[in-house]
Amino acid sequence: MRLASRGYSISLPAWVEAEVREVPDVLPTREERMALVHRLADRNWREGHGGPFAALVAETGTGRVVSVGVNVVLASGVSSAHAEVVALGTAQQAVGTWDLGAPAMPAHELVVNWRPCVQCYGATLWSGVRALVVAGDGPELEELTTFDEGPMREDWAEQLRARGVDVVQDVLREEALDTFRAYRVAVDASGATVYNARRG
Amino acid sequence: MRLASRGYSISLPAWVEAEVREVPDVLPTREERMALVHRLADRNWREGHGGPFAALVAETGTGRVVSVGVNVVLASGVSSAHAEVVALGTAQQAVGTWDLGAPAMPAHELVVNWRPCVQCYGATLWSGVRALVVAGDGPELEELTTFDEGPMREDWAEQLRARGVDVVQDVLREEALDTFRAYRVAVDASGATVYNARRG
Repeated sequence: MRLASRGYSISLPAWVEAEVREVPDVLPTREERMALVHRLADRNWREGHGGPFAALVAETGTGRVVSVGVNVVLASGVSSAHAEVVALGTAQQAVGTWDLGAPAMPAHELVVNWRPCVQCYGATLWSGVRALVVAGDGPELEELTTFDEGPMREDWAEQLRARGVDVVQDVLREEALDTFRAYRVAVDASGATVYNARRG
Repeated sequence: MRLASRGYSISLPAWVEAEVREVPDVLPTREERMALVHRLADRNWREGHGGPFAALVAETGTGRVVSVGVNVVLASGVSSAHAEVVALGTAQQAVGTWDLGAPAMPAHELVVNWRPCVQCYGATLWSGVRALVVAGDGPELEELTTFDEGPMREDWAEQLRARGVDVVQDVLREEALDTFRAYRVAVDASGATVYNARRG
């Protein structure tokens, strides 16, 4: 057997660098961090690189942003390249370890514009972050965007907390819904790709 | 803000190429596919690149192997780089689309040496594969290896089938357990890293 490929790579779109250039390296409040996530999420679907989702990894204490991620499933051709996985992988290779909760490292958090899908929920669990900060959870995301988030357990937040990952909810929730609504309008108007699930 | 990193990349270890060189490109039976997965899983932890886990993506009809993956969390420094995510991402960039179930494409399956963890369960759902083939499921993996597989739902297999992903279980199950037992012996003897979960 000769391997056709020996791995894969995930790159942020070039526009991300431009979008964050004027943003300070340190965002002291969670609202500031989430506001950046919302900006990236909204631009991402408009650029056609993937769904209306973005994330970032920050040091909880200082607010220093370690990485940002957007959903690049369409741009990368890799179905796991959701915003959370991209932000976490980028942060981990930047700091040089798979464990963002390693001893002697500042506490890290993942900031996302909705409760993660089942894949990214697991990715959060294994990443070492000490907190998951979401704009919201509930059926609105699936209703507005028609993305399937997968079979989640009712006790998803308790299961995170039981593993030492704090869950912070409802940070700029309405602004998240604004992004999803704008995306839905565009999907209805143009038939833009809603990709993830096989529909049976 | 200046981004420290603009993405991440995942590479299979060099030994994988040598390990598969004498293996045919086409493995007609699921037992042959699983036997290769078991070989890769067993060598992977011995090489120190990650846990005792491997996976491959194959065309269900022909048995042609499209990609292989091993757990490279330790080698890559990326916590999402479980065997399933690596095999799927590698296959998707090789064939040029995130959707392994795209129209006009042969049906693909993911072959893994145990039921995926919650992250890789989601990754399977979004990959487009039409079948998930596992050596087994049940508590033995967590008991033997001490890895946390995350909070899964009881109806995980039904949820896959409801989305058009067939589930095939108990393919060379005992051989999977042999790998996990050997890994456990080594962990007990040497304190090898069992990485994924934060322990609260």
